[in-house]
Amino acid sequence: MEPAPPEFDLIAQLWAPLTLGAPGAFGLKDDVAQLSSAPFGHVVTCDQIIEGTHFLPSDPLDWVAKRLVRRNLSDLIAKGCKPIGAFLSVAWPKSRPYAHLADFAAGLGQDLAELCGACPLLGGDTSTTHGPLVASLTLVGVPLSAAGQPILRSGAQAGDLIFLTGTIGDPFLGLQVRLGLMDGQGLEGAVSIALAPSPPPLAVAAIIATHAKASIDISDGLLADAGHVAAASGRALELDLERVPLSAEARVFLDRAQPPVEALLSLVTGGDDYQALTCVAPAEAKAFASKMKALGVQISQIGVCRDGQGLNLFFQGERLDLPARTGWQFSGA
Amino acid sequence: MEPAPPEFDLIAQLWAPLTLGAPGAFGLKDDVAQLSSAPFGHVVTCDQIIEGTHFLPSDPLDWVAKRLVRRNLSDLIAKGCKPIGAFLSVAWPKSRPYAHLADFAAGLGQDLAELCGACPLLGGDTSTTHGPLVASLTLVGVPLSAAGQPILRSGAQAGDLIFLTGTIGDPFLGLQVRLGLMDGQGLEGAVSIALAPSPPPLAVAAIIATHAKASIDISDGLLADAGHVAAASGRALELDLERVPLSAEARVFLDRAQPPVEALLSLVTGGDDYQALTCVAPAEAKAFASKMKALGVQISQIGVCRDGQGLNLFFQGERLDLPARTGWQFSGA
Repeated sequence: MEPAPPEFDLIAQLWAPLTLGAPGAFGLKDDVAQLSSAPFGHVVTCDQIIEGTHFLPSDPLDWVAKRLVRRNLSDLIAKGCKPIGAFLSVAWPKSRPYAHLADFAAGLGQDLAELCGACPLLGGDTSTTHGPLVASLTLVGVPLSAAGQPILRSGAQAGDLIFLTGTIGDPFLGLQVRLGLMDGQGLEGAVSIALAPSPPPLAVAAIIATHAKASIDISDGLLADAGHVAAASGRALELDLERVPLSAEARVFLDRAQPPVEALLSLVTGGDDYQALTCVAPAEAKAFASKMKALGVQISQIGVCRDGQGLNLFFQGERLDLPARTGWQFSGA
Repeated sequence: MEPAPPEFDLIAQLWAPLTLGAPGAFGLKDDVAQLSSAPFGHVVTCDQIIEGTHFLPSDPLDWVAKRLVRRNLSDLIAKGCKPIGAFLSVAWPKSRPYAHLADFAAGLGQDLAELCGACPLLGGDTSTTHGPLVASLTLVGVPLSAAGQPILRSGAQAGDLIFLTGTIGDPFLGLQVRLGLMDGQGLEGAVSIALAPSPPPLAVAAIIATHAKASIDISDGLLADAGHVAAASGRALELDLERVPLSAEARVFLDRAQPPVEALLSLVTGGDDYQALTCVAPAEAKAFASKMKALGVQISQIGVCRDGQGLNLFFQGERLDLPARTGWQFSGA
């Protein structure tokens, strides 16, 4: 095992290249970074990834870092914002070889450069731990809407159409296979996606900023996150579950599942999809969908907002009861 | 053991009160926060605290949270900046009772309110872990200098006087006692300080912003951090170690240590003092020191900047060799 270089070599070797020369990083040689002024103020999201909770100890570390970036990036995209700087804390297990930290840095740098529009790493902290790996990313962005505001959960109005980017369910299926809870036959793509699901491309943020009234990324689960929008907006969200876009592999899973509605419910409560659910006024819907398609982004209308509250679920015209569990929840002690 | 409430009750009970009603927190009910625009841009620091690395498993959790705040706050104060918003990631051990998390939140809230000038918590993430507690804080601030820049490590010039706020060494002594490596007789105060050493008061930031040319907080150790300023500024820092301000308890320790120079070197390489070391032009020194004293802050001139590089150490007029270890360093694998 190659020993770790001293702290300052480590910064110079692994992290400093990720600043992309941003002057506000001060070469990661000082104790603070400086963000350039933003006319409407910055937006900030902060999410972590924990070994044994969000990823498996055997996961390749470049993909673990990508998952961390995407967890945060999907928040900014769904809010109509563009990332402009990242801050990283890493609690690094003493037992892991230095090469793994280099893998982690490589994956982080690749996603910050390619998915986040050349977003620089501006600062952070690397320390050691006797426990599992924990990494926290703070992603700073700027709102792209004309009003200079992020698109919140709370803006949905009755009559708005509910759209979803991409497909749902592959990260859940892939994780089930990886945990040995499901037969992996025909789900090889989902297994790969589950390592670090992709959010929609960054250009989607500007379309959401221009056209959406409410928006959220699917992290807890489609039903849970739609429920968050319903609660924050004080409206009912009516979803037609047969319209939820699925990958070819998820369709294979549904075809062999009995009953299929139960299987579909497992996909829409699984979480970690990182796609954007948006509420768009009918007058804006055509422009919204056209711009998405012009980017090559799959866009599906999966329901409509109504007066009322909570979620109304339908499957092939039949009303469904809401499942007891709509998505992931924190459980502490 | 009282069970943890579900995630959203937990946010409402523990974290939402810490927003102090800041509108940009959106009540911690959305996925991003918004910082109000700052004319010169924001500054950001990001540091974590890890059970078993930075604190002992038996430490009271309110003090662990305070230590986390102070680790970050001391960076901002030394850079002449004022905190305006905080983001918290917590990897919470499943084995710890919920009451400990409430203690942690209480300590965090108290320090953000009292030491950070009513700084709101604006966002973050709480997840569970099978391992030790890890918490990361991102503290956003605004520079108070007329130029709108943080006071960096790199601005020292030959002739500048080197000042230090407060006293040095108590956190090191307290930790030694707590680890059973030192007799605690007469060091009761240091033991208490070591739980969460206090940075200088927030008002010190404006004085540094107005008068200092280079500045750093003492976290790695006085010698290590002075060395960082020397390296970044391309100057030599000449320190008279007998001028380093010590508490009454540290003097007791020195008096019973043989040889005293070795003991003094252990204090100036111990770290976690959170005091500010600043380089001030001679013409500014009187105003700088008077303002510090007017605040009730102990201020000591401990040396002078020279042409050259690195550290020149003196003790009672005799030149000392630099110890092999000047402070804390990351060691990875």
